[in-house]
Amino acid sequence: MDQQANSRPRRRGRDRGAKATPQRQVNYRQLRNPFPPMPAFSEDRIAAIHHTALRVLEEQGMKVLLPQARALFRQAGARVDEASGMVFVGRDIVEAALASAPRSILCRAGTRDRDVLLDPGALTFLPGSGTPHATDLKRGRRPGTGRDFRELVQIAQHFDVMHMLPPMVEPQDIPTQTRHLFTMEAQLTLSDKLPFVYARGTPQVEDSFEMLHDFRGLSDAEFRAAPHCFTIINTNSPRVLDIPMAQGLIDFARFGQVSIVTPFTLMGAMAPITVAGAVMLSHAEALAAITLTQLAKPGAPVLYGTFTSNVDMKSGAPAFGTPEHFKASLAAGQLARLIGLPWRCAGGSAANLNDAQAANETQFALWGSLMAGATVILHSAGWLEGGLTLSYEKMITDMEVLQMVAEMCVAAAAEDSDIAFDALAEVEPAGHFFGAAHTLERYQTEFYDPLVADWSNFGTWTEKGERSASERASDIWQNILSEDARPPVDGDRFEAMQTFIAKRTAAGGAPPES
Amino acid sequence: MDQQANSRPRRRGRDRGAKATPQRQVNYRQLRNPFPPMPAFSEDRIAAIHHTALRVLEEQGMKVLLPQARALFRQAGARVDEASGMVFVGRDIVEAALASAPRSILCRAGTRDRDVLLDPGALTFLPGSGTPHATDLKRGRRPGTGRDFRELVQIAQHFDVMHMLPPMVEPQDIPTQTRHLFTMEAQLTLSDKLPFVYARGTPQVEDSFEMLHDFRGLSDAEFRAAPHCFTIINTNSPRVLDIPMAQGLIDFARFGQVSIVTPFTLMGAMAPITVAGAVMLSHAEALAAITLTQLAKPGAPVLYGTFTSNVDMKSGAPAFGTPEHFKASLAAGQLARLIGLPWRCAGGSAANLNDAQAANETQFALWGSLMAGATVILHSAGWLEGGLTLSYEKMITDMEVLQMVAEMCVAAAAEDSDIAFDALAEVEPAGHFFGAAHTLERYQTEFYDPLVADWSNFGTWTEKGERSASERASDIWQNILSEDARPPVDGDRFEAMQTFIAKRTAAGGAPPES
Repeated sequence: MDQQANSRPRRRGRDRGAKATPQRQVNYRQLRNPFPPMPAFSEDRIAAIHHTALRVLEEQGMKVLLPQARALFRQAGARVDEASGMVFVGRDIVEAALASAPRSILCRAGTRDRDVLLDPGALTFLPGSGTPHATDLKRGRRPGTGRDFRELVQIAQHFDVMHMLPPMVEPQDIPTQTRHLFTMEAQLTLSDKLPFVYARGTPQVEDSFEMLHDFRGLSDAEFRAAPHCFTIINTNSPRVLDIPMAQGLIDFARFGQVSIVTPFTLMGAMAPITVAGAVMLSHAEALAAITLTQLAKPGAPVLYGTFTSNVDMKSGAPAFGTPEHFKASLAAGQLARLIGLPWRCAGGSAANLNDAQAANETQFALWGSLMAGATVILHSAGWLEGGLTLSYEKMITDMEVLQMVAEMCVAAAAEDSDIAFDALAEVEPAGHFFGAAHTLERYQTEFYDPLVADWSNFGTWTEKGERSASERASDIWQNILSEDARPPVDGDRFEAMQTFIAKRTAAGGAPPES
Repeated sequence: MDQQANSRPRRRGRDRGAKATPQRQVNYRQLRNPFPPMPAFSEDRIAAIHHTALRVLEEQGMKVLLPQARALFRQAGARVDEASGMVFVGRDIVEAALASAPRSILCRAGTRDRDVLLDPGALTFLPGSGTPHATDLKRGRRPGTGRDFRELVQIAQHFDVMHMLPPMVEPQDIPTQTRHLFTMEAQLTLSDKLPFVYARGTPQVEDSFEMLHDFRGLSDAEFRAAPHCFTIINTNSPRVLDIPMAQGLIDFARFGQVSIVTPFTLMGAMAPITVAGAVMLSHAEALAAITLTQLAKPGAPVLYGTFTSNVDMKSGAPAFGTPEHFKASLAAGQLARLIGLPWRCAGGSAANLNDAQAANETQFALWGSLMAGATVILHSAGWLEGGLTLSYEKMITDMEVLQMVAEMCVAAAAEDSDIAFDALAEVEPAGHFFGAAHTLERYQTEFYDPLVADWSNFGTWTEKGERSASERASDIWQNILSEDARPPVDGDRFEAMQTFIAKRTAAGGAPPES
C-alpha cells in the first residue's frame, strides 16, 4: 500500500484505457538494518566495560525496592540485604540469564502482516512517546489529552514505517485509574500494530492483558505463548530498580510479554560524565533487569536497551543528537552484540520548535542508532523538547526521513538493463533522457515519492505561499485524521471490550502503583 | 582554537587566580573518515559498471569540443572524428591514466596547518558553492554580489571544519572580465585556506595562478610542484566535454594544480533514470576527464567525483538528499575505491527555506557521502534551492552538523578511569553525579559545545523570544562578520597584488571563455 499521503504518479497520456497507472511498490514493514555497524570502542575495551558492569552488580549492587524481586534474586544465589534493599548479583547468575533470554522474538500484532520479529539485524521504528504535552500548529502546545492520544495513534497507524505503538502522549484528562483501559482501547480499535502497556502495577497490567487477549480472541495459554504487547522498563539511575518497574519485569516475564529494558543515563547527571562510564552503568542496570526477567521465567522475551546521552553542563538540560549520544549508542550496540540480544535505542531532539535544530538533532541521533545496529529505535518521529512534547508536524517531517531510511533497506538494481548501456546509446551527446524509452518504462515507479518535501523552484514556492515543511506537514496530518481510517474490528469483540471497560470503571479501575 | 562563536565553558568559582578555565581542545582540521563504508552494489556489479563505462568510451565515445584536447587523445591512440568532435578512447589509455594519477595529493594552503591531504580516507568539507543568489534573514534573497562573496569567505574562514574554499556565490555585480581577480583577492586576503579558481579559459586561469604564486612568494617551479588551488570540472552530460572544461583540465594538469572532476548527472534528465545507469554514465565521463589530465601531464593531481541525484519526474525539478542520491553516492564510492583515487561527492537540499526539509535533506545527503567514503564533500553547508541560493543561516545550522561529524572522528576514551567503576562507587543509589569528583574534573571539557543549538526548556525559550535555529544562526554569522577577522597578510605582497589587479583591469581583464 502506498503510504505517501500526498502525491501519486500521474498518467502521461498513454494507455488511458483499462491499464492502470503503475504504482510503486514499497514495503516498509519488515525492515532489516542495511548499514554496516560502527564501533565506538575496541573489542577489548567493550569487554572491559562488560566485566566492569558485572563487578558493579557483584560489589556495588542494585537497590531493588520490590520485596518479591529481591526474593527471586536471593533464591538464585544473590546476596541480599533486606534492610537496605541492596542486591549483589554474581556474574554466574547474570550469565545464566543471558543464556536463557531468547535471541529472536516474534511479536504478534493484530494481523500477521503487522507482526514484528525482534532479533539482531531487524530494524523497527517507533514514534516519540511518553510525553506530557502535545503540540501542533493548529492548536498550539497543551497538556496531552485522550483526544491527542487517539489522534496520534491514528497518525502512527497510517505509516507502515511505524512498526509498534509506544505510549505517544500521556492523556492527562483521563483519570489515572482508567487511563490504561482508555489507551488499550484506542490502540486496539484505531490500529492493528503491536500495542504498548505501561508497567504501573499488576492490576493495570492484568487489566490490559485481559483486554488484549479477549480482543485478539486468544486463550490464556495462547496469549502467553507469544508476545502480543510490550512495555518499557526504566531503571532509576544510578543503581535503583523501583517497585513498579520490577513488578513489570516479573509480570511481563510470567505472561510471556516483551519488556524493553532501558536505563535512562544522562552523562554528568544520573550517570558518570564519560561515554564509557555512562554506558557501563546503563549496561550494569540493564543486566540486572534482564536477569530478573529470567529469574521470573527462564526464556521470557526481553530486549536490552539504553537511552544514554549527555546534558548541558551549564544548565543541566538534557541534550540529544549530540556526538556523545551517538558514541554511547554505538557502544551500546557493541554490548548488545556481545551479549547476543536484540536491543533498543532512541533518537530525538531538545529543540523547542520543529526547526533546523530539531531536524538535525533527531537525524543525527537516528544515524547513531542505525550505525549501532539497534533493533528498536524509539522516539524516531515527533519527539521535541527532550521528551516533554510530541509535535504532530515533527511526526510528519521525521517520517520522511524514516521512509527514506526504509528505502535504503532495498538495494538498487544493477542488472545490465539498469546499467543502461543501450539506453545511453540512444541519446545523443548533450541530449536528454526525459523521452527515452528506458525512462518512459520506469519513471512512474523509479523514485521515492516524497511525503512532505517540496522541490518546486523559488518562484513557484513563493506563489504557493512560501510554506515551510512544518506547514505542509500540518496539512498532511490533518488529512490523515479526516480520513479517520480504522482497521477492521470484530463487532462482538468490540462490544465485549466495552462491557469490560464499563465493568472495570464501575469497580474503580486500577490506580497506578509506585 | 575554539571555533564555537557563542558559548564557552564558564568558571565555577574555583581557582579564580592565575589558573585559567580549561578549554576543550578540538581539531577539526585534518579529519579522517571514521565511518565504515557501505556498498550500494555487489563487487561484481560494480565491476560491470566500470567495464560498461569503458565500453561507452570505446564504442559510444565522448564529444570533445576543444581541438587541443582531441589532439591529445589522438596522440595517445584514441580514434578521433574531427568533423563530429567524437573521441573513442580505448581502455588501455584509460587504465594507463588511472595508473599515473596520484593516489595522495598534498595541497598547500596559506599556512602549513591549513594544508589539505587528499587521499582515500581523508575527509574534507566545503560549503555550498557556485550559487547565483545569496539569502539571509536580514537582507533577503538577492543576486549574489561581491560583498556577499567576501562575507561568505569570512564565514567559511571562521570554521575549521570548512577545509577548502569553493566559489561560494557568483558575485554578479563584478564585471565578468575581472571577476576572477576579485575572487582570488578575496580568498587570499580574507582566508588562509586552499583557494578555488574557475576554469573559464586560459587567460583567467593564468591570471589567477600568477596572483596566487606571487602572493604565496613561490617561484613558478615551486608553484607547479604542489597544488596551491583547485578547480571543479563538470562534464555536460551526457557525453560532452566542452571547451572551457577541457581547457581547464589541461591547464590545471600542466601547472600541477588539482582538478576535481564532477559529472552532474540527474537520473531521468541528463542521465539514465536508474541509479546504476546514472552512475555508469558519470563514471565514463569522469574517466574521460581524468584521462585527459594524465595525457596533458602524467601524474597531474586529479580527483574522481560525481554529483548524481534524481529529479522529480512530475516537474523535472532536481532533488537532493533522496534515497537515490544516497545510493548513487555509495556506488560512486565503490567505484572510487576500485580505481584507487580520492574523490568528491556532494550534499545539499532542494528546499526553498532553511526549515526541517532543508536540514533533513542536507543531512541525509551528507550521510550518503560519509558512508560512501568521499574525500571531499561539497555543498555541505548553506546550499539551498538545489544550488540556486546560498543561505547564511543555513551555513551556520549545517555547520553544527559538520562539527558534530568532526567530533565523531575522535574516539571516546575508554580507560579504566573513563569506565568509572570508582566514580560510580562514590555515588549512592538514586544519587547524582553533578558534584562527583569524577564529574568536576571533566565537566568543562567533556562535551561538544553547541554552536547554534538551544537546549533550554520551553519556558526559558519562550521568555527569550521563541527564536528558531535560523534566527540564532543569523546572530552568529553577523557576529563573525563584525569581528572582521583576517589572517596575517604580507604587506608587500598585498601591495604587489593590488598593482597586478590594477594593471590587468586596465588592460581589459580576461573575459570568461566558452
